[in-house]
Amino acid sequence: MGDARGRNGAGDGKVLNIAVAGLGRMGKRHAFVLLNRVLRANVVAVCSTAKHETEWARKNPDFTDFNVSVYDSYEEMLNHPGLQAVWISTSTDVHADQTIKAVKKGLHVLCEKPLSTNLDEVTAAIEAAKSRPDLKVMAGFSRRFDASYRDAFQKVKSESIGEPFLVRSNTCDLLDDTGFFVQYAKRNGGIFVDCTIHDIDLALWFLGNPTPKSAYAVGTLKHHPELAESQDVDNGVGIVEFHGGKIAYFYASRTQSHGHDVCTEVTGTHGKVMVNVIPKANNVVLADKSGMRHEVQPEYWQRFEEAFVTEATEFVDSVLHDKPVPLPLESGYAVMKIGRALQESLITGRLVRFDEQGNRINE
Amino acid sequence: MGDARGRNGAGDGKVLNIAVAGLGRMGKRHAFVLLNRVLRANVVAVCSTAKHETEWARKNPDFTDFNVSVYDSYEEMLNHPGLQAVWISTSTDVHADQTIKAVKKGLHVLCEKPLSTNLDEVTAAIEAAKSRPDLKVMAGFSRRFDASYRDAFQKVKSESIGEPFLVRSNTCDLLDDTGFFVQYAKRNGGIFVDCTIHDIDLALWFLGNPTPKSAYAVGTLKHHPELAESQDVDNGVGIVEFHGGKIAYFYASRTQSHGHDVCTEVTGTHGKVMVNVIPKANNVVLADKSGMRHEVQPEYWQRFEEAFVTEATEFVDSVLHDKPVPLPLESGYAVMKIGRALQESLITGRLVRFDEQGNRINE
Amino acid sequence: MGDARGRNGAGDGKVLNIAVAGLGRMGKRHAFVLLNRVLRANVVAVCSTAKHETEWARKNPDFTDFNVSVYDSYEEMLNHPGLQAVWISTSTDVHADQTIKAVKKGLHVLCEKPLSTNLDEVTAAIEAAKSRPDLKVMAGFSRRFDASYRDAFQKVKSESIGEPFLVRSNTCDLLDDTGFFVQYAKRNGGIFVDCTIHDIDLALWFLGNPTPKSAYAVGTLKHHPELAESQDVDNGVGIVEFHGGKIAYFYASRTQSHGHDVCTEVTGTHGKVMVNVIPKANNVVLADKSGMRHEVQPEYWQRFEEAFVTEATEFVDSVLHDKPVPLPLESGYAVMKIGRALQESLITGRLVRFDEQGNRINE
Amino acid sequence: MGDARGRNGAGDGKVLNIAVAGLGRMGKRHAFVLLNRVLRANVVAVCSTAKHETEWARKNPDFTDFNVSVYDSYEEMLNHPGLQAVWISTSTDVHADQTIKAVKKGLHVLCEKPLSTNLDEVTAAIEAAKSRPDLKVMAGFSRRFDASYRDAFQKVKSESIGEPFLVRSNTCDLLDDTGFFVQYAKRNGGIFVDCTIHDIDLALWFLGNPTPKSAYAVGTLKHHPELAESQDVDNGVGIVEFHGGKIAYFYASRTQSHGHDVCTEVTGTHGKVMVNVIPKANNVVLADKSGMRHEVQPEYWQRFEEAFVTEATEFVDSVLHDKPVPLPLESGYAVMKIGRALQESLITGRLVRFDEQGNRINE
Repeated sequence: MGDARGRNGAGDGKVLNIAVAGLGRMGKRHAFVLLNRVLRANVVAVCSTAKHETEWARKNPDFTDFNVSVYDSYEEMLNHPGLQAVWISTSTDVHADQTIKAVKKGLHVLCEKPLSTNLDEVTAAIEAAKSRPDLKVMAGFSRRFDASYRDAFQKVKSESIGEPFLVRSNTCDLLDDTGFFVQYAKRNGGIFVDCTIHDIDLALWFLGNPTPKSAYAVGTLKHHPELAESQDVDNGVGIVEFHGGKIAYFYASRTQSHGHDVCTEVTGTHGKVMVNVIPKANNVVLADKSGMRHEVQPEYWQRFEEAFVTEATEFVDSVLHDKPVPLPLESGYAVMKIGRALQESLITGRLVRFDEQGNRINE
Repeated sequence: MGDARGRNGAGDGKVLNIAVAGLGRMGKRHAFVLLNRVLRANVVAVCSTAKHETEWARKNPDFTDFNVSVYDSYEEMLNHPGLQAVWISTSTDVHADQTIKAVKKGLHVLCEKPLSTNLDEVTAAIEAAKSRPDLKVMAGFSRRFDASYRDAFQKVKSESIGEPFLVRSNTCDLLDDTGFFVQYAKRNGGIFVDCTIHDIDLALWFLGNPTPKSAYAVGTLKHHPELAESQDVDNGVGIVEFHGGKIAYFYASRTQSHGHDVCTEVTGTHGKVMVNVIPKANNVVLADKSGMRHEVQPEYWQRFEEAFVTEATEFVDSVLHDKPVPLPLESGYAVMKIGRALQESLITGRLVRFDEQGNRINE
Repeated sequence: MGDARGRNGAGDGKVLNIAVAGLGRMGKRHAFVLLNRVLRANVVAVCSTAKHETEWARKNPDFTDFNVSVYDSYEEMLNHPGLQAVWISTSTDVHADQTIKAVKKGLHVLCEKPLSTNLDEVTAAIEAAKSRPDLKVMAGFSRRFDASYRDAFQKVKSESIGEPFLVRSNTCDLLDDTGFFVQYAKRNGGIFVDCTIHDIDLALWFLGNPTPKSAYAVGTLKHHPELAESQDVDNGVGIVEFHGGKIAYFYASRTQSHGHDVCTEVTGTHGKVMVNVIPKANNVVLADKSGMRHEVQPEYWQRFEEAFVTEATEFVDSVLHDKPVPLPLESGYAVMKIGRALQESLITGRLVRFDEQGNRINE
Repeated sequence: MGDARGRNGAGDGKVLNIAVAGLGRMGKRHAFVLLNRVLRANVVAVCSTAKHETEWARKNPDFTDFNVSVYDSYEEMLNHPGLQAVWISTSTDVHADQTIKAVKKGLHVLCEKPLSTNLDEVTAAIEAAKSRPDLKVMAGFSRRFDASYRDAFQKVKSESIGEPFLVRSNTCDLLDDTGFFVQYAKRNGGIFVDCTIHDIDLALWFLGNPTPKSAYAVGTLKHHPELAESQDVDNGVGIVEFHGGKIAYFYASRTQSHGHDVCTEVTGTHGKVMVNVIPKANNVVLADKSGMRHEVQPEYWQRFEEAFVTEATEFVDSVLHDKPVPLPLESGYAVMKIGRALQESLITGRLVRFDEQGNRINE
């Protein structure tokens, strides 16, 4: 018995039996990445609570031909015979709970960012993971797996720019006029929690995990008035000062006309390293009456697909060969603390301060 | 009697008899710009209180051959026969006073930025200028005369980017290890007053002169510990929020390794216009074992020389043809108010707020 | 019986059982592309006549875990049970022969460029393929599968540049000081046959398969004096004029210091489309004392890996769904004719001319 | 008595009294460059045989205010009192004759490229210049005075790219639909003589004045059918091989849609230097729905204005300080010989060959 390539029903140390939770835009992508791009990942199951998603999955030849079971319930899926690992790509509000449930079942977990917008839930999930040191439980911050960011990091590490002390980082999305974004925005925790979280993670990585001293943010609403209900904005700028003379500043936008524009600059005492400051969809330039132009990726998927593949490959590898996960779950805590501080500053119009241990100072 | 080209001692409506005050780095450059590049500017005098500068000037063949008188005193120079206009390029602390003196003598004036770091002096000079509407009294913000900024402004004006609402603007200087900068830094009012003032001016220009709502800044000291004495930094980041949902944010640095890196991005509801995001010294790229590289201008002069020529040409033209000056003196007031607010925020660690009329709110 | 994922020994219409001939640098890569990146390719066998290559393959866990048989003989491999298709990635001199043998066995074939440097062999292989219209027999010109070239082609097709009439195209390799290249160069047919063949293929594609009128080439030897034995050069420039007022010109080099630099420009009556004119290894720029620089891919693999994946995916798809192959074998004939004409011109120092049917004119 | 700035009627060793011959598009520009940009050039006269040009000049305030005499005849102008030098910017067919006349009058001369399209006339003018070694007689090849080309040359000279052996160089003009170009094209000698001559000059400069071995060219007519009368084309590609293993290849076009696109690449044994491979009008990039785009200079004047200023400044300086001219007249001979060989090859469809002394081989 087997799928089109006759996969066995259970892992044998050569491949990892893995399931994907969530079949939204990203869940589908992760399922296909695991199926198509990760040799040693054996996708045995997927699940969703959305009927149109499971119906779609049950008809998809890539799932049916390769023996991928489709579940309506996450909990049921966790009982799939021989299952070894879960990739959680559901909506943020259930990330922490699902992570804890999988850990309790003795499954390895990769949970997409953010673990939760609630710091207590983040802590609970981290505690659960710590209670099972035999399991690999990993946070999914895709940019850390991008070849350009890794090259930049190596350059910083090898002191090409001296001591790094300043990060500028942007997450700017193409304007979405379809309503899809606004629909999804309700549960995402706000622009600094949903978008800037990647930039904060990068800043902490490049600056050597400094402790925050203060966070300040402003924003404006230009295209999505519905966001006002949740006190959110569609364009925001924030500054985070760290103890020890380091600074990061961020721009997040939902309203770019030209595409997905995500860039980072790390300035050091003797140089600067820039990632994607001029975004390009491909290597093509068109010269005509309007000058010379190139196109820009419409979405983060076009920019970061390879990073997701690397992330998946390294997660599978960490399980199969019992290596440390490249990004432990707890790394998400500091990031979320800062993201929430920026969002709070945006709403209150006040500076949020932290002491030298990184604890909130209440004023 | 005359110089090498036999210039007459006085203007005749075809050329403007002009003097340059200050023979420091910029004063010399302005004198040569007027002499070499502005057909209808007749440089009749220069002055400096620094002996080595006047000695140098008295031996310089471009001055001696073209009959340029050299004075040790600004006040004496103002009495030069036939003098019609003064270009003030001395140190900031005497700008306002010299402007007022020239106006009182009935001379047209171009005063380099900033008019003063003291808002009362700024006001006094503006009042003096207003008292003589027959005279042309102009503020020198060179970037407004740069061809690229002007092209960008036309693009914004013609609605290429929809409604502009966000400006990012940097003034980043090459690291100066010679001590020249630190020497000069003592009287410049701080990094946000000295550097960012250009970016603030651009932000006000591109955003349609919005009223500030708040200013916040942080900074760090990486190369010039001497600046600590004046509570200044060598790298600073600031955000200015304006009433009406507009935002500007700035980065200023004294410590770049690669050159003079000055860029501006204006984001609107339907596009973005970028000026000099990848700075280049010229059109040359070298490909070798280390990849492909280009050089960057070392200094603002290489980047903005043509802008200074345009500025000079338009000032001379405004006098000879009695046109409005392209940049009236009062435009410097709002810029300086914001620059000083950022500098104050940097020092106090607090947000500086303004009401809807742009008046400081004391908290 | 099965591999780590339990693949069956034979195809079932859902996957294609495929073997890879040749385990040199490219053979290995193609085997891994098929194994890792093409869901519906079931790699069942590989072969090589080089002992160190088969020894390596027999120990490689990706082959042993996934049940890939390793053969010492191409002919034996063709008898592998259930085999449906062969990917030929051996040295050029056996391409045609192996293609013919596989076709005679009733196997689908993808043969890497060039089919042969001998036009009679090219013809024989094409005839063999024509005799079995039930089989998919495809030429491997990887650039046609590259996303940027395809985007450029769509732009040309949609008349973004008017009527295309001029192609400039380069194939420039990183200088190889290891001796590997020189070793391999002996059997490759010369620089215009080995390198420029890609550019000729692109020119024919973008210009709508025009008929050649003349070919002329010159060259020089700068780093590999050994090439003189075979009358070859390490840098060459050639022009091909086509009937109907179209022109292509080419530069091929084995001696670039900065990396693999492959670019193409297509000029039309109303615009120009450029592919990879500034090659970049990734999105990273480093700014330091020497200016701003980026790195360049060292090899064509880094530039074209995704193209090889697309090529493999489309070949497998054409077999499984009985679609026409994206690039039929005969397309290689016109390309080779022009490549050889350039090489001949290089050697003789004379122009090679063709009549309006594309037949050689002997002078 | 004098002009607006009271210039004397004659030079005094501090300024050079100079006249400009020709008031066409370029003549006007050179007159203004000398007037506005060269401190020590005293423009005393201009001339043209075109009535509308002299009428325009007699009303132009920059001429009348600064005492510039306007002549209808070149020969009369040569008698202007105190005249020391002539800048010849007339049509090519009178360049050589006017140069000889000026030299005979004892005047210094800068003659715009090309000296003549007739090699005998070139020789005659060079002989005339040699007969008066006391006079400065200079060829005008503007690109040699461009800051980027000079920087590139310094990089080559300092061995940044090893030994240079290959030059690619383009002269591509914006499509001119006004008829102006076609009008002017009749007397210009053909595309390789009129356009590529600059690229040939650069190739000789960068490659160290090698001796030509062969020249070959092809071309096509896409927009200007009128050129067929003179056997000319509007797009042409040529290769020049030099003795000693050096190569240059060229593309010239009259029909670019995006602007004036002039670039040069010099490849050496250890690197490559590129000038203006991506042409840009300024530092502005616009990001909108169509991607990111920049504009391109429409004309060579926008690209090379500063080079013309440098050329003028250095010519004036060479006279005033009795220095060698930066580009002696004879440098134009080798350039024209190659340009004419390419044009001949274009027309005959044959290779033009030269022996090791650079003499034509007749076949």
